Amino acid sequence: MEFKDILIRENIKKLIPYPIEEQTYKIKLDANESPFSIDWVQWSEVMEELRQIPLNRYPDPHAKALRKALSRHLNWPADGMILGNGSDELIQYILMVFGDHDRPVYAPHPSFSMYRIIALSMGLEFRKIFLQETFELPISQALIDELSGEPQKILFIPTPNNPTGNAFNRDHVLTLIENTNGMVCIDEAYRDFSAEDGFLDILPKFDNLVILRTLSKIGMAGLRVGILLGNQDAIEAISKVRLPYNLNSISQFLALAVINHHDQILVMIDKIKKNRSWLQNEMKNIKGIRIFPSQANFILFTCEGDADAIYHELLKEGVLIKIFPPEEPWPALMRVTVGNKNECGMFIRALKKILSNQGR
Amino acid sequence: MEFKDILIRENIKKLIPYPIEEQTYKIKLDANESPFSIDWVQWSEVMEELRQIPLNRYPDPHAKALRKALSRHLNWPADGMILGNGSDELIQYILMVFGDHDRPVYAPHPSFSMYRIIALSMGLEFRKIFLQETFELPISQALIDELSGEPQKILFIPTPNNPTGNAFNRDHVLTLIENTNGMVCIDEAYRDFSAEDGFLDILPKFDNLVILRTLSKIGMAGLRVGILLGNQDAIEAISKVRLPYNLNSISQFLALAVINHHDQILVMIDKIKKNRSWLQNEMKNIKGIRIFPSQANFILFTCEGDADAIYHELLKEGVLIKIFPPEEPWPALMRVTVGNKNECGMFIRALKKILSNQGR
Repeated sequence: MEFKDILIRENIKKLIPYPIEEQTYKIKLDANESPFSIDWVQWSEVMEELRQIPLNRYPDPHAKALRKALSRHLNWPADGMILGNGSDELIQYILMVFGDHDRPVYAPHPSFSMYRIIALSMGLEFRKIFLQETFELPISQALIDELSGEPQKILFIPTPNNPTGNAFNRDHVLTLIENTNGMVCIDEAYRDFSAEDGFLDILPKFDNLVILRTLSKIGMAGLRVGILLGNQDAIEAISKVRLPYNLNSISQFLALAVINHHDQILVMIDKIKKNRSWLQNEMKNIKGIRIFPSQANFILFTCEGDADAIYHELLKEGVLIKIFPPEEPWPALMRVTVGNKNECGMFIRALKKILSNQGR
Repeated sequence: MEFKDILIRENIKKLIPYPIEEQTYKIKLDANESPFSIDWVQWSEVMEELRQIPLNRYPDPHAKALRKALSRHLNWPADGMILGNGSDELIQYILMVFGDHDRPVYAPHPSFSMYRIIALSMGLEFRKIFLQETFELPISQALIDELSGEPQKILFIPTPNNPTGNAFNRDHVLTLIENTNGMVCIDEAYRDFSAEDGFLDILPKFDNLVILRTLSKIGMAGLRVGILLGNQDAIEAISKVRLPYNLNSISQFLALAVINHHDQILVMIDKIKKNRSWLQNEMKNIKGIRIFPSQANFILFTCEGDADAIYHELLKEGVLIKIFPPEEPWPALMRVTVGNKNECGMFIRALKKILSNQGR
């Protein structure tokens, strides 16, 4: 049989794949990765144990050791936890279990694009909640009426939000959880860099709430380990669709090692926060640049003049950042990940050079 | 808001999670894993390189190095290939792209249960194609009419089939590909143990065909690396739903190392085939046991008397195998994975002891 377009499900035809920049650069400040990797050299015991992992065997389908360690670490029961091959997979599971063709998926805008991409790839309707100009959640009676009414919904609330960097007002988030007719997922991918409390303390109170965490922003993006926290009914339902061997043996093992060496992670997070302060101070003093408050490991900024040109000039200097096209009421948004000292310095020097060349 | 059952999508409520045996055993012959792991000790260079992987960075979203090596190894273009977090994830993608609520999913029965489980978890209808008593595909005009007619279908054909162990008649498979109104997926998970040719040679001729391979049965189950091979249109469509970072950095790296040391894998496969012959010869001579031909790394057998009792007696002896409940026209089916020499010996001794205790 010949390939016919009809073979492909209707909603898939319109999709375009998740865009990933394939650029040449010296420093990579575009993906909110940690600039610090684990110091393997100090981990000779871990490496020795790694060799002992029987890779010919399937992984532990329940990731028991890792969930137990995470349970102690997060102070949340191990059986209230599902691990994923990154948060992406967990978002997919949430949509498989709580989504349906007549249940629209909501997320703030601008925000992490994968909520929309995954929803569309599953044939679900996606609706943007446009943030206020300050990037705060736009709580209004109209929004509450929409979310609380029929049909049932799914709402993603990432806080701190990406790419805006702010943590949403806690009361606003609570209002949305209380008033949404359906499942709410708070994505706390950037929580480790925030001065705000997370929402784990209120999770027992809301059966329509699940929370996402990840190891990707704190130095383990290469391992792909996402964490979903929830109450019994939600976890039980999501367990039904989880692929049984979704977390490979080595990621389970190394994630466990990381949790057991969490003091090293805390040192890294502290360095990133210090570098963030340094970057903020430097950027504040660059004429033509406006920065936004950040509770995350990146800084959102705008610039006077041609943002696209500045992005490409930065790339010529070897600095890869992320740019989002202008969209009312915002001009083009630029996002720079907080790197190590050298990377931050290189970014600031390049930015100053480019702007002074433009005669500012 | 309180958790209401209504939050959960209708098709999910009926699901039960994939059952995984949590048994105590000395030797594990239940999951068709290879008994042989890579010899890390010989791989000090690989281990040294492994330490250099920047785990703080996201994996290569296109797994370029691994796909290039696989392309050479399989003699199939790298851009005609999508890698997955195990074949399970690739089955999910196939169903997302080519499935729909009005497109039933077909697979032989008995066969690998994940086709059904994943289809149901996505709200799709699943239909069994009951195999002949010999476990051959039941080619008939009625089946051809059903598959070729409306509505559009998805058909999985695993060959060699699990748990039956036989490779299907090639002409039968071709007949089904030619006559199916929709996408056909040949799952060649066990191909490395088969004397039959696979179907990669005919893939260019059929735009409605994709082929699955995996590293799980040849010593790398812990890494979770599945391989989907297809023509341009199919690959392009599936690429749209693939999660961008679905294959972690270490699995990419170690899978590449394995492909580059494929001579070691061939030695292991050869040992498994020899052990299979030994097992077959031994089992043939055990009264009360009937074995079925195998082109895979396991042997299907039936026994006179109470199969369930024999299964549990084996477990008491420390030998974990897999049992499938009786279903017309078959009695209970038992499947033993081909282990290393010691494991095969232990299994045979235990089986003989149990049957002789039963007075055979």
